[in-house]
Amino acid sequence: MKSGRLVYMNGVFVPENEAKISIFDSALMFGDMVFEMTRSFNKKQFKLREHLERLYMGIKLLHIPINMSIDELEQACLVTVEKNEPFFGEHDEHRLMINVSRGPLGLYAPVFDGKLEPTVVIADFPLKWTVSGMAPLFDTGINAVIPSQRAIPASLMEPKIKNRSRLFYQMANIEVSQMKGENNWALLLDPDGFITEGTGDNFFIVKNGEILTPEGRNILRGVSRAYIFDLAKELGIPCRECNIEPYDVYEADEAFMTATPFCLLPTVSLNGIKIGSGKMGDTSKALLKKWSANVGVDIESQIKEYGKEVAILNSDAPTPYQFKRK
Amino acid sequence: MKSGRLVYMNGVFVPENEAKISIFDSALMFGDMVFEMTRSFNKKQFKLREHLERLYMGIKLLHIPINMSIDELEQACLVTVEKNEPFFGEHDEHRLMINVSRGPLGLYAPVFDGKLEPTVVIADFPLKWTVSGMAPLFDTGINAVIPSQRAIPASLMEPKIKNRSRLFYQMANIEVSQMKGENNWALLLDPDGFITEGTGDNFFIVKNGEILTPEGRNILRGVSRAYIFDLAKELGIPCRECNIEPYDVYEADEAFMTATPFCLLPTVSLNGIKIGSGKMGDTSKALLKKWSANVGVDIESQIKEYGKEVAILNSDAPTPYQFKRK
Amino acid sequence: MKSGRLVYMNGVFVPENEAKISIFDSALMFGDMVFEMTRSFNKKQFKLREHLERLYMGIKLLHIPINMSIDELEQACLVTVEKNEPFFGEHDEHRLMINVSRGPLGLYAPVFDGKLEPTVVIADFPLKWTVSGMAPLFDTGINAVIPSQRAIPASLMEPKIKNRSRLFYQMANIEVSQMKGENNWALLLDPDGFITEGTGDNFFIVKNGEILTPEGRNILRGVSRAYIFDLAKELGIPCRECNIEPYDVYEADEAFMTATPFCLLPTVSLNGIKIGSGKMGDTSKALLKKWSANVGVDIESQIKEYGKEVAILNSDAPTPYQFKRK
Amino acid sequence: MKSGRLVYMNGVFVPENEAKISIFDSALMFGDMVFEMTRSFNKKQFKLREHLERLYMGIKLLHIPINMSIDELEQACLVTVEKNEPFFGEHDEHRLMINVSRGPLGLYAPVFDGKLEPTVVIADFPLKWTVSGMAPLFDTGINAVIPSQRAIPASLMEPKIKNRSRLFYQMANIEVSQMKGENNWALLLDPDGFITEGTGDNFFIVKNGEILTPEGRNILRGVSRAYIFDLAKELGIPCRECNIEPYDVYEADEAFMTATPFCLLPTVSLNGIKIGSGKMGDTSKALLKKWSANVGVDIESQIKEYGKEVAILNSDAPTPYQFKRK
Amino acid sequence: MKSGRLVYMNGVFVPENEAKISIFDSALMFGDMVFEMTRSFNKKQFKLREHLERLYMGIKLLHIPINMSIDELEQACLVTVEKNEPFFGEHDEHRLMINVSRGPLGLYAPVFDGKLEPTVVIADFPLKWTVSGMAPLFDTGINAVIPSQRAIPASLMEPKIKNRSRLFYQMANIEVSQMKGENNWALLLDPDGFITEGTGDNFFIVKNGEILTPEGRNILRGVSRAYIFDLAKELGIPCRECNIEPYDVYEADEAFMTATPFCLLPTVSLNGIKIGSGKMGDTSKALLKKWSANVGVDIESQIKEYGKEVAILNSDAPTPYQFKRK
Amino acid sequence: MKSGRLVYMNGVFVPENEAKISIFDSALMFGDMVFEMTRSFNKKQFKLREHLERLYMGIKLLHIPINMSIDELEQACLVTVEKNEPFFGEHDEHRLMINVSRGPLGLYAPVFDGKLEPTVVIADFPLKWTVSGMAPLFDTGINAVIPSQRAIPASLMEPKIKNRSRLFYQMANIEVSQMKGENNWALLLDPDGFITEGTGDNFFIVKNGEILTPEGRNILRGVSRAYIFDLAKELGIPCRECNIEPYDVYEADEAFMTATPFCLLPTVSLNGIKIGSGKMGDTSKALLKKWSANVGVDIESQIKEYGKEVAILNSDAPTPYQFKRK
Repeated sequence: MKSGRLVYMNGVFVPENEAKISIFDSALMFGDMVFEMTRSFNKKQFKLREHLERLYMGIKLLHIPINMSIDELEQACLVTVEKNEPFFGEHDEHRLMINVSRGPLGLYAPVFDGKLEPTVVIADFPLKWTVSGMAPLFDTGINAVIPSQRAIPASLMEPKIKNRSRLFYQMANIEVSQMKGENNWALLLDPDGFITEGTGDNFFIVKNGEILTPEGRNILRGVSRAYIFDLAKELGIPCRECNIEPYDVYEADEAFMTATPFCLLPTVSLNGIKIGSGKMGDTSKALLKKWSANVGVDIESQIKEYGKEVAILNSDAPTPYQFKRK
Repeated sequence: MKSGRLVYMNGVFVPENEAKISIFDSALMFGDMVFEMTRSFNKKQFKLREHLERLYMGIKLLHIPINMSIDELEQACLVTVEKNEPFFGEHDEHRLMINVSRGPLGLYAPVFDGKLEPTVVIADFPLKWTVSGMAPLFDTGINAVIPSQRAIPASLMEPKIKNRSRLFYQMANIEVSQMKGENNWALLLDPDGFITEGTGDNFFIVKNGEILTPEGRNILRGVSRAYIFDLAKELGIPCRECNIEPYDVYEADEAFMTATPFCLLPTVSLNGIKIGSGKMGDTSKALLKKWSANVGVDIESQIKEYGKEVAILNSDAPTPYQFKRK
Repeated sequence: MKSGRLVYMNGVFVPENEAKISIFDSALMFGDMVFEMTRSFNKKQFKLREHLERLYMGIKLLHIPINMSIDELEQACLVTVEKNEPFFGEHDEHRLMINVSRGPLGLYAPVFDGKLEPTVVIADFPLKWTVSGMAPLFDTGINAVIPSQRAIPASLMEPKIKNRSRLFYQMANIEVSQMKGENNWALLLDPDGFITEGTGDNFFIVKNGEILTPEGRNILRGVSRAYIFDLAKELGIPCRECNIEPYDVYEADEAFMTATPFCLLPTVSLNGIKIGSGKMGDTSKALLKKWSANVGVDIESQIKEYGKEVAILNSDAPTPYQFKRK
Repeated sequence: MKSGRLVYMNGVFVPENEAKISIFDSALMFGDMVFEMTRSFNKKQFKLREHLERLYMGIKLLHIPINMSIDELEQACLVTVEKNEPFFGEHDEHRLMINVSRGPLGLYAPVFDGKLEPTVVIADFPLKWTVSGMAPLFDTGINAVIPSQRAIPASLMEPKIKNRSRLFYQMANIEVSQMKGENNWALLLDPDGFITEGTGDNFFIVKNGEILTPEGRNILRGVSRAYIFDLAKELGIPCRECNIEPYDVYEADEAFMTATPFCLLPTVSLNGIKIGSGKMGDTSKALLKKWSANVGVDIESQIKEYGKEVAILNSDAPTPYQFKRK
Repeated sequence: MKSGRLVYMNGVFVPENEAKISIFDSALMFGDMVFEMTRSFNKKQFKLREHLERLYMGIKLLHIPINMSIDELEQACLVTVEKNEPFFGEHDEHRLMINVSRGPLGLYAPVFDGKLEPTVVIADFPLKWTVSGMAPLFDTGINAVIPSQRAIPASLMEPKIKNRSRLFYQMANIEVSQMKGENNWALLLDPDGFITEGTGDNFFIVKNGEILTPEGRNILRGVSRAYIFDLAKELGIPCRECNIEPYDVYEADEAFMTATPFCLLPTVSLNGIKIGSGKMGDTSKALLKKWSANVGVDIESQIKEYGKEVAILNSDAPTPYQFKRK
Repeated sequence: MKSGRLVYMNGVFVPENEAKISIFDSALMFGDMVFEMTRSFNKKQFKLREHLERLYMGIKLLHIPINMSIDELEQACLVTVEKNEPFFGEHDEHRLMINVSRGPLGLYAPVFDGKLEPTVVIADFPLKWTVSGMAPLFDTGINAVIPSQRAIPASLMEPKIKNRSRLFYQMANIEVSQMKGENNWALLLDPDGFITEGTGDNFFIVKNGEILTPEGRNILRGVSRAYIFDLAKELGIPCRECNIEPYDVYEADEAFMTATPFCLLPTVSLNGIKIGSGKMGDTSKALLKKWSANVGVDIESQIKEYGKEVAILNSDAPTPYQFKRK
């Protein structure tokens, strides 16, 4: 089945199901790839530049010899969206996946006739794929679970570079999939015992009228995470980084996760112990409401709509292995 | 340029330059892939079963729902070699790269018409690609360099699973590429300060007639590493695992690295400080000689031959970025 | 309901349900108590002296000013058993709990008319209370689960002193009680990622014909654990201590737990991943058989008999909170 | 000798010297008990609600299935005080000890006729027992001593839960009792080398007009500690948490300890090295004065009065083993 | 060649080349010496008192039984400068080196006729010796390099005491001397992966208009470092301490090093990756300009002048071994 | 008072009290010096070559550009002894102190007329200075005390290089000097909680007929320590390295310290808790006896003789500050 959607691959557009990377690419050999995943609101990309700036920081630190400027890459993203829009539904949003790797390893030059260059990919697919399964979580909330797997600290591998060497995320997800109950999402401690992040989302608590989130040390400093600081400012709510331990979460009034696709989801318990009222809190609601207002999309309603739609779609889409919300 | 070589991809053979993996595969999303890389001696695969057993241990621990048995995969490897032999030179050896990932993530099911299954790849390319650049090292020896980058300990991400989340290997390689001098290869310490391994090879020292290698904790337990134990037994030389610190290396009589493609290369200095005589030692030579005898190939000579041949080949094969011996 | 059983308390025998310790005792104030729990085989105490020697090591290290010699305490144990035997069934075994604390804290002297002395308690109850629920485990085996909770290393609190400051055991048990599946027992890692022990049992693996158990560092060095070394010697099986990581367990051929009440139980999986055949292994069986022969009791049969008996007993004995096998 | 004082035990009042806990209780088996110790000023309980809230946080985290609400427990405390007041002297203050454990372990159900429930205890004794020996310290000050024993970090056992697994407190006290000199109190470092707390008290320094105390991480967050923040606010002195190292203490102008029974005592040296003037500092004095004013009791005078009184009492009250100020 | 310069040694002035310390002194036996190194501006000592206060803190913590008061030592410093001024050039500045050790170890008393006392030394030499080689760095900037060698954390040896047990500084310098490129200065991480300091200088970054420097934990809290806080205040630029990781440096707009002799030098790259514009930034310039104005010396010009002068001087002054800027 | 003894200093012999090192030497600036201290038996140097080999390993690792070969240095040692013998008593032994540093730092070249070279010193003084105070310890034994100060692990500063950056030894000694009781010697734990060494001596235990000593990781690998292995072999007693925790010492049958000057001294308690019988054990005695026999000196008697003699000498030799046995 051809979807019509096209993926940008080093300057060429190919059908989505042909968007592939050589097995000789450093991305596959070492998990040596940086990436970003964005979304639109009402078809307009949100914070695209911020995502790309983080991407270029990773490119710099990994010494990837890319020839494209950030402006060129931004332009390529916009063209990709434009090309794909005809194949998107009216209410769909564009989720971009932007990948950059060092390209094929030099020793495999013969396979590429000596043409070795970084690999740049821009895929564009409907946001609903990612978020439809999360629709019920606005009501039930997430149960954050601390697995035995610890976050790898920045001194060993820098999580602030959004990279593809994240096997330990899967190890955490496997572990959490073995817990009783529903709506379990992993929340990782670092080796010091501080809360870091989920396996793809940032974590916040609200306590005594303040919004608190782990220091930007052993985490990806999420674009949505940064936006919470902006929203809090607009709402006049103090918001700051600090070290957060599980005990602080148990004492919190509210908690939530943030990530680009779903923006903000309530976290109502930790290891099965209720946080605050055990429901989405007022501050969480205010943030999500403000966010929705700012971008002109009722985020919760949109995702719930997607949830209805995709439930049908998914009925005949068995997945080989799923740990969580995929 | 078509080489004729074919790659096994989930039961189908495709040309080498079309051997690619979907950008929606867990391998690319998380570095969530296990792999093996083997070699032949006189066209006969060496320790293939041992490699596959390690692969299946990784498959088990990562909960990859593979349908192929180890026997079937072994058979597929042999068929792949057979199919490719016509495109190999008389003196070439077959280097296999066997990759297994969880396959496309469930949320991207629409791209695959719902057909989601683990990804199994077997590539087969000439060993000389990997080893030709190493030919001079039998004479000059390697200068092992300890970079600031530490090995990620097994408690955070299991190195004994041969996986593709190895960005920190590249970080170490980048660092070492900035050192003065020639023939610098990274040798990683773990956070306790013990020597672990190189970024793709195991490390040994010889001291007072004993062969010593780091405990099998924060390393990949290499197949060649295990074979050194066998060779030592055959030669009547004691060989054991222990914690090794840089100081122990400085006091050693000899040192060497092992890996599947080159078998054994002398390490003649650490951080520029000479080890023993500063040349390949007698025990190292005896091991390599015995290895050569056992497999019926003069390993050093073969690689030196490849070195001459590929020097020509490589002259017009610029590589975009190389840290080391690629 | 009076059981008739009596508990030794500082030289006096009191009914079991009156065996209590002052709330002003250092044992309750600080978890400042050492203890031992023994069992009999055919009514004869097993390794009582070894248990008491470990107890006196703890007494020495905690500077508990006990006046009783080890011989006197041993004698008191035997008298306690003798006094209680009339209230034990024919097939019952005597399980002793021997507690020694520093006694009431000095500041509470007024409560005790200034009479402050260490607290020495010897209780004697039927072994079946402890083991009846474990009867099915000889067939099903244990699924060892690694919780997020780590063992406290010896450098922070010495686990080789069998003490009562074990809140973290309960934390681990709570965590494991939240895992899916049956027969889950906690198996703790230390902060280095090495396997230590369960929350009341020692752990062994069998690999390539060798019996291996964690080094005696961050564990209680169990009396049953030591007996495995004796049995292995009798059976001519090599047995040694080493650092064991989860990976080693996954590679093992067999695994088992030991503890005084049940002697040896098979561990057939780790975190749900099968170990070896997934059944009690031959070496485990041989050890248990030899143990049974040596003490003249078929250990497995005895516990299975207790299992039948107590199933009835327990039907009207609701427990307020149980994490595991209590 | 009967004192007349009564202890609340699961709804029943018993004489103080009969207030005991079964040896089969989880409190004694695992140090699995949470507790609070309060005091009155002029017979009125101080911050009782804050103490109970902390207690209930511990009950929640340890999953203790208590049936009593916090209001009911508060009421029980007040009734206990009322019942005991006739047996208190005119100038005595009520020190409550409130203990809650999970109760007898399920396996010992036969001892309790199957009636298993959490253990709730409220004892009420004269404050002077605790503080009389501290009277001279207002003048001499405390010499804080850093023992080899480190605080167990929160990631291994949560000190913010006021629990009874505190054997390492006794280990620290034993160590400090072996130091030369007088008035030595333990002050624990965590494994990172930061100052945490004493073995029952919180620590503060005053530097450049600011009051500083260790971050609330590896400590019990004391009720008196929190009250210092209130007092500082009333006095207009900045007060904040930060990481404090021994060096910072040596550079400080003043230092003090806080705890419920004595409120605030000057710490005049660290490891025998004078802090500031080596006497109780002005800020310390101002805090204690304000505290006294707020509660209507001259705290220092009251304790000094108790000191005279109990000196006589204690003359025939030998204690078996005392490390410190008991 | 006699320079005329004199060194104060325990009350006596000796020629510079006779300023020596007994091999039996604790300074040489254990690196058991504290010291300060100051400079003048226009011949006037800068922050001499602050240096001496830090020195006396070290004397206190090391229990050195010095008889001299801080006032006496300050006086001795001034006298030393006065005595030496005749031998200084018109544009020279006075660099003092003030050393205090415990003196000869007691067991060597016979060598000293039993006269054992702390060793106090004040040397006075031209600042240009230290800074002339740094002249080009105002233009090229420093490339900070993170070596494998980590800073020893304060919990193991207190870097806030300016002491002479700094072998690990030399180890770091050796390592950095092996890096390609020019102007490489070591910048040490602590074992947590936070940036600490250079081997004799403090480190700052400027980011979003704020000046940031590592927390005063695993570093020497430099006098120049403290002065940056003063200057920032004067200039109205926020300046604060925080944990800084390499990633933060890569994201910074500017970076610089500070130390007494050179005051402030731009750091334009980290591990070869450009920081900000790769040149001395505006904030750095403003700080240096203000500093120059405050002390009445154009710091950069002065050092550049010295650079010209000493280039000649050094031409026949081979050094046996130099890692860096000596 | 001139003793007549001479010290070798870079090829020149100077009187002992003039043996001094420039304050501009790297030894004093950084503790950047390696050294050895030897002794004679019956005037014959013991294991001089082994000491020098260790010294040259340090010279190599610190990149000290020495021009003297090991043979030349050995020769210089022997000449130094010969020159000094006339000033030694008949029963005196020669204790050599051999120091090598990088020499004056390059920036201080003007002080040395540009003549910069490594500093080589050989002093020769009577052994009795060091050991006379230890005479009673053969009878009383040492009480080993574990201070709060931890050994710096090899990954941060290599203790196997016998270097002069040992301020933390003094910190440990200061701490232990504050303990009650007599004969207290520091015994350092590493950050993992394993026993390392004293501040100048190695540690052994004897348990179940085996001699055990800490692994050669975070310690100086002493020449006397190595000789214990030789002696044990001669006596047929098994002797091996392993990780030793305080608990193991408490369980040991005997313990002792070794160092060059005193050879072997019994350690009879740890932190005041008796080890074994609390007296010098049989194995310790056998080792010392064998050692004495091998070298032809009754070691214990000799030191006891020195003890008598020097007691008089020391009566008018006040020392400014002594932590221990100096």
